[in-house]
Amino acid sequence: MVGMTAATALRFTKGHGTENDFVLVPDPEGELVLDPARVRALTDRRAGIGADGVIRVVPTSLAAEPEVRAQAGEAAWFMDYRNADGSIAQMCGNGTRVFAAYLRREGLESADSFAIATRAGVRQVNATPQGYAVDLGRARVDESDDARRTGFNAVVHSHGGPELPGLRVDVGNPHTVVVLPPGTALDTLDLGVVPHVAPTPSEGTNVEFVHLVGPGHIAMRVYERGVGETRSCGTGAVAAALATRWWEGPDEGNRRWIVDVPGGRLTVTHTLEGTAVLAGPAVLVADGVCEL
Amino acid sequence: MVGMTAATALRFTKGHGTENDFVLVPDPEGELVLDPARVRALTDRRAGIGADGVIRVVPTSLAAEPEVRAQAGEAAWFMDYRNADGSIAQMCGNGTRVFAAYLRREGLESADSFAIATRAGVRQVNATPQGYAVDLGRARVDESDDARRTGFNAVVHSHGGPELPGLRVDVGNPHTVVVLPPGTALDTLDLGVVPHVAPTPSEGTNVEFVHLVGPGHIAMRVYERGVGETRSCGTGAVAAALATRWWEGPDEGNRRWIVDVPGGRLTVTHTLEGTAVLAGPAVLVADGVCEL
Repeated sequence: MVGMTAATALRFTKGHGTENDFVLVPDPEGELVLDPARVRALTDRRAGIGADGVIRVVPTSLAAEPEVRAQAGEAAWFMDYRNADGSIAQMCGNGTRVFAAYLRREGLESADSFAIATRAGVRQVNATPQGYAVDLGRARVDESDDARRTGFNAVVHSHGGPELPGLRVDVGNPHTVVVLPPGTALDTLDLGVVPHVAPTPSEGTNVEFVHLVGPGHIAMRVYERGVGETRSCGTGAVAAALATRWWEGPDEGNRRWIVDVPGGRLTVTHTLEGTAVLAGPAVLVADGVCEL
Repeated sequence: MVGMTAATALRFTKGHGTENDFVLVPDPEGELVLDPARVRALTDRRAGIGADGVIRVVPTSLAAEPEVRAQAGEAAWFMDYRNADGSIAQMCGNGTRVFAAYLRREGLESADSFAIATRAGVRQVNATPQGYAVDLGRARVDESDDARRTGFNAVVHSHGGPELPGLRVDVGNPHTVVVLPPGTALDTLDLGVVPHVAPTPSEGTNVEFVHLVGPGHIAMRVYERGVGETRSCGTGAVAAALATRWWEGPDEGNRRWIVDVPGGRLTVTHTLEGTAVLAGPAVLVADGVCEL
């Protein structure tokens, strides 16, 4: 493995899915060293290119992780995702669509349906008229006694707002979903400050504030743990749709949900197998070379 | 003049000066249409490339403005600067250095000293070991009766902080400069909220909060009108240095000031002619093509 130094010119593509944005760096030879400092330099919105995360595009067979290499054959390309702070992430729902759009544009995948490798496992991708749909796997409402009895198992208090009952949802990462009372508009919430969640989960939680638009249609704002309010969160959309469906009664509820986020429109489809398929746009904005 | 549509691929370079960042677009034939919507698309930090402003690099002889074309010969290239919201701007101090670095790297200027055209007039640029120095022209303390008697002519109240006396300075755009009392650290200020300035100037004002580091050396944070806190403001550095020097007594004071901003280090030199020379780094980060 030949390391590249930070001074080497780096090819990149910038893209976004519902304004969750990424710097993609192709690494066909699996030789690129993405240390945390370099990821932070790339994602710096003023001194760098700027993004919510970095996606290294590498053949599955050349991944460092043995468990990823074991998926080779089924999925030709590995989405090596890093958060903007340089840390390694398991998965990024909006990122999978942008990764898929890049693979197709570059001719690295040509079918309408193909598999990609992620740290959370192999994921099936399908091209759609609006972009791509990706099965994110199982999502699960935390059905504690409280939740079964009252529908809720948390209390959420946004800055300056009322205390509202919430429901915990696990989408591989932790979420707490709140429905706003009728007459309360999403844009009245102050999410410039981290919402208080009780009891406070030790690993933290993303918080989704949901406005019911109509049957099978919600709008939401999201506060991501450790980040702040974002324009979109794929797993958050899955959590919000699942919690709303659960409150309606899972056996009766809609399987397909429109989820409007500040950065655009997503759809979440609950499959018969208990997984959630996230669909939405993927836009490749710019291609270039940087010196970071 | 041939208009390009927004769908046309656009060459760009991203650069920054003390983390005040810009998208530069070359336009050697003077045919590029930069309507406000396209500028906003380019500067959008999630759906676009992201920047504080856009600089169109166009031959002075092809500028739309007759007063800019009249400068042709003296300055070969015109810095057509647009704010991130798409509005036209007269000048951007940090932008002039990045513009100069781009002209030199592209071989459009080869001398160590050359003139550039801006809407505020022709500006002389000099290469320095740290980057570039640009004469920004006359800066002027508002020497009202109050200011001559007390040293101050405004009261500034940052969110949750004490009321502090300020001084108005005109650098082509309006500034109000405040010195923090000894023992008050810059990082204790809350600039997430617009500071209140009394009396409130009708055209608004940028506000610089200054910490005295030592002789000829200040550190500052800046709240830019209509924008919020920024990592750097070139005219703000000039205003802060000029006000501090004026308080010390202009005939005695230092001519050369180091001004530390959150995004790096600038120097301001007051010339014998009453102009201010702003010097600092200029970094070209990435080059590419976008579809915006």
